[in-house]
Amino acid sequence: MTTQAIAVDVGGTEIKAALVDVGPDAAATLRQVRRRTPRGADGPATADLVIDTVADIVSELRTGDARAVGVVVPGIVDEQHGLGVFSANLGWRDEPLRDRLAERIDLPLAFGHDVRAGGLAEARFGAARGMRNVIVMPIGTGISAAMIFEGRIHSADGRAGEVGHVDIGHGEPCQCGGTGCVEAVASSAAVARRYTARTGTPVDGAAAVAAAVRDGDPDAVAVWHEAVDALARGLVTLTAVLAPEGIVLGGGLAMAGRLLTEPLAARLDDMLLPFHRRPRLELAELGDTAGCLGAALLATEGLSAP
Amino acid sequence: MTTQAIAVDVGGTEIKAALVDVGPDAAATLRQVRRRTPRGADGPATADLVIDTVADIVSELRTGDARAVGVVVPGIVDEQHGLGVFSANLGWRDEPLRDRLAERIDLPLAFGHDVRAGGLAEARFGAARGMRNVIVMPIGTGISAAMIFEGRIHSADGRAGEVGHVDIGHGEPCQCGGTGCVEAVASSAAVARRYTARTGTPVDGAAAVAAAVRDGDPDAVAVWHEAVDALARGLVTLTAVLAPEGIVLGGGLAMAGRLLTEPLAARLDDMLLPFHRRPRLELAELGDTAGCLGAALLATEGLSAP
Repeated sequence: MTTQAIAVDVGGTEIKAALVDVGPDAAATLRQVRRRTPRGADGPATADLVIDTVADIVSELRTGDARAVGVVVPGIVDEQHGLGVFSANLGWRDEPLRDRLAERIDLPLAFGHDVRAGGLAEARFGAARGMRNVIVMPIGTGISAAMIFEGRIHSADGRAGEVGHVDIGHGEPCQCGGTGCVEAVASSAAVARRYTARTGTPVDGAAAVAAAVRDGDPDAVAVWHEAVDALARGLVTLTAVLAPEGIVLGGGLAMAGRLLTEPLAARLDDMLLPFHRRPRLELAELGDTAGCLGAALLATEGLSAP
Repeated sequence: MTTQAIAVDVGGTEIKAALVDVGPDAAATLRQVRRRTPRGADGPATADLVIDTVADIVSELRTGDARAVGVVVPGIVDEQHGLGVFSANLGWRDEPLRDRLAERIDLPLAFGHDVRAGGLAEARFGAARGMRNVIVMPIGTGISAAMIFEGRIHSADGRAGEVGHVDIGHGEPCQCGGTGCVEAVASSAAVARRYTARTGTPVDGAAAVAAAVRDGDPDAVAVWHEAVDALARGLVTLTAVLAPEGIVLGGGLAMAGRLLTEPLAARLDDMLLPFHRRPRLELAELGDTAGCLGAALLATEGLSAP
């Protein structure tokens, strides 16, 4: 038994959408659409344009078999009340996105958070499959985490998972106003920025720094090492408090594959204490489709919810 | 409708037990027994003696109306498999306490962890009542936490909640083998130990240091300030990751009341960032009976579980 859903993942630069056929153990993407995320003069204007674009995409992907729509958005998202509470990138605040989208879309609508929905997809179809307590952590411009406890996503009214802003003591300022944040050193944006600051050489993202690490560039190695150390410190804290069976790394930085996971696993192993659980460290399997597949899951699960 | 249960809270120095009448919103303690925790030559010998003592206490408290027994123990406890995985204090390792107790006790038996059971009791009858996402943190010889997410205790096979061993960067060695741990500076044992190390004056626990703070002793003030700062750093990390509605402080250090909560709330308020949830900071209400009441809850809920 499979169910067709239209899934939309609103990102800071791009909206990814798909018609997805969702089954219990697998999901098949039947059609895909990508659009540049529209921008207005301010947050409310951007919200208007995003709602228009999502409604257009849903019409475009709609088939007679589509039973529901799932839309996920970034930032702080209150799933329960259907609010885009805050997005640094898109500028909205307390925007009632779910209800506004529902007015425009004539199908059952589920609304959620991009990272938590992506975590759900990794748990159902990807690298976190079979784990009841698992943290799925995309490392991109920022770092946040989907936390799954006993098989359920932990949202805490949309405020949970700000792992990127755990102070791990390196003392460097973060854009959030704090210091010592994991993401100030370890996000893919930070890796690129810090390499440029150190060498004066502009780079096109963390992948370029990873390539330089492979070439033995000592500045790249130093920046990479600091990122790995910061991630390890953050993960040790998560492990002490939450004791997950596994930690799944995704996002841009995880595209480096074993260049990231091998030194990170070694550093974690050094730092974990005997009484800590040793979580499995895995690479995400769903890549940048995780958010969309998660939106499709929210849509189809919403159909069977009370 | 109330149900009578025999509740036993095995501590490092004392076993507290009670006959408890458990209702949906309140629990009444009908009789109480306290015994010194027996010690054998090693962990297994201590486990034997503890099992004997618990069985004796249960016989002593048993009435015709007692429907079930709940026993909670310290350390790392795997509720699902009924194991005392590790106790630094009592020395056992992977001890099948639940099954061994069940052989000696002729009533339905529930087995759990002292801190998590105490958190459940605070959530049902105490300071965490009405909160769906809440952390209950006793601060005693060590620091660990009961974490309640969406109304359920998070155990992660008994490994969750080691908040005391989050590295918050002060660099001091901890008994666990790590450095910078919250509890190396902020446990009630650490407060007493650090005051003595600083002044050469032995003190009888954190309460004596709190009294010296009230008297304006500058050494006590410095040690107290460092403990508050360490707790605040730990709680900021928990808040970033978990976004609880409330944090309930218990254990010996919380006996200091507002001397602890007022500076801690102020320090937390300074450190939390605008996008963090502001958790309510509360003092535990059930004192050293929380573990026993939690054991009684486990016992009576076990009766209605599948």
